[in-house]
Amino acid sequence: MNNSLLCDIGNTNFSFSTGRKVSVDNFDIASLDEKVYFISVNHYWEERLASEKNWVNLRTLIDFKKYYESMGIDRVMCCEAVDNAIVVDAGSAITVDLIEEGQHRGGYIYPGFKAMAKCYKDISPRLEVSFNFDLDLATMPRNTEDALSFGAIAPLVSHISSISKTLPVILTGGDAQKLLPRIPHAVIEQDLVFKGMKKIIQGQA
Amino acid sequence: MNNSLLCDIGNTNFSFSTGRKVSVDNFDIASLDEKVYFISVNHYWEERLASEKNWVNLRTLIDFKKYYESMGIDRVMCCEAVDNAIVVDAGSAITVDLIEEGQHRGGYIYPGFKAMAKCYKDISPRLEVSFNFDLDLATMPRNTEDALSFGAIAPLVSHISSISKTLPVILTGGDAQKLLPRIPHAVIEQDLVFKGMKKIIQGQA
Repeated sequence: MNNSLLCDIGNTNFSFSTGRKVSVDNFDIASLDEKVYFISVNHYWEERLASEKNWVNLRTLIDFKKYYESMGIDRVMCCEAVDNAIVVDAGSAITVDLIEEGQHRGGYIYPGFKAMAKCYKDISPRLEVSFNFDLDLATMPRNTEDALSFGAIAPLVSHISSISKTLPVILTGGDAQKLLPRIPHAVIEQDLVFKGMKKIIQGQA
Repeated sequence: MNNSLLCDIGNTNFSFSTGRKVSVDNFDIASLDEKVYFISVNHYWEERLASEKNWVNLRTLIDFKKYYESMGIDRVMCCEAVDNAIVVDAGSAITVDLIEEGQHRGGYIYPGFKAMAKCYKDISPRLEVSFNFDLDLATMPRNTEDALSFGAIAPLVSHISSISKTLPVILTGGDAQKLLPRIPHAVIEQDLVFKGMKKIIQGQA
């Protein structure tokens, strides 16, 4: 079981626990005959794999009463991976979830930094900048670039700090590294989805 | 002087201290022969009015060393209006400025709520919602609509609270009312721009 192949199917890639990534456009089912435990936010592939005997959809093993119905399965798996933590998944959106004693206490969605930059630009072309992730969040900014970077980062960091208290903050996703220096006692765990998947499989064993 | 006509020229309207609003497309300079003190974020009208003897541009009376060069003149006037406060102007963007002992200590820019809603929708059509401004910010959300509303509102409110300490929070702009119940000891002052303009004129008298 510990050597089971795990796969996280997104809208762009099949991401395997081995580190291999394959574009959803190029994936060939026949290329794998071993057992694969998977989750998918990609509806096409989730349906397509339903008839494949060696592909096991872990969604069916999740008790969604613990979460809410429209919550992404990748986000659910990150929450399953921990017992007491704030989980921050910083990707195209940034999800912030509170888990205490293995229970999901709720969570929220903040725009990802790329989306936030586009948001400013859409308000006014004068607000088009590259965020400065090194700025000092303890000092109020005094130029437009920093005012926008600060506006994108400081409110989120302030709120995460206000709810984390004694809980560890676990960062995952493509922009985890950008948040790491901003949040005291935060750690990065890039394999959080797979960790949650393994825990679900072990619970079934 | 107290009866001087004041005008705040935006990209859409001429807004007068009398409450009158005229579209920038329909404004007729010849309709007014009295003295008008104005500010303008609208470059076309700012240049157009430079040659009109009865129109006095208050930008020329501002010491921009106190602020930063690219800071909007309407935002500067709101800051001039107060001596010790956090000023939050909630419009197409939300600006948050810290003024202590009459000095601008810096400020930042957060997306306005309309822009934030579009930002979520641009990330994914599944994230298109109308924000629920009545939700409880002390409880982590458990459905997508609340998760997005919370993500748009709670981080901003958390940060404002963290910097306001003993300072009053003064709200202005179209969405001031939405923030009012969220921020302890906040007050709304919709005429903050005109208040700042009056202070500048009085300082020159």
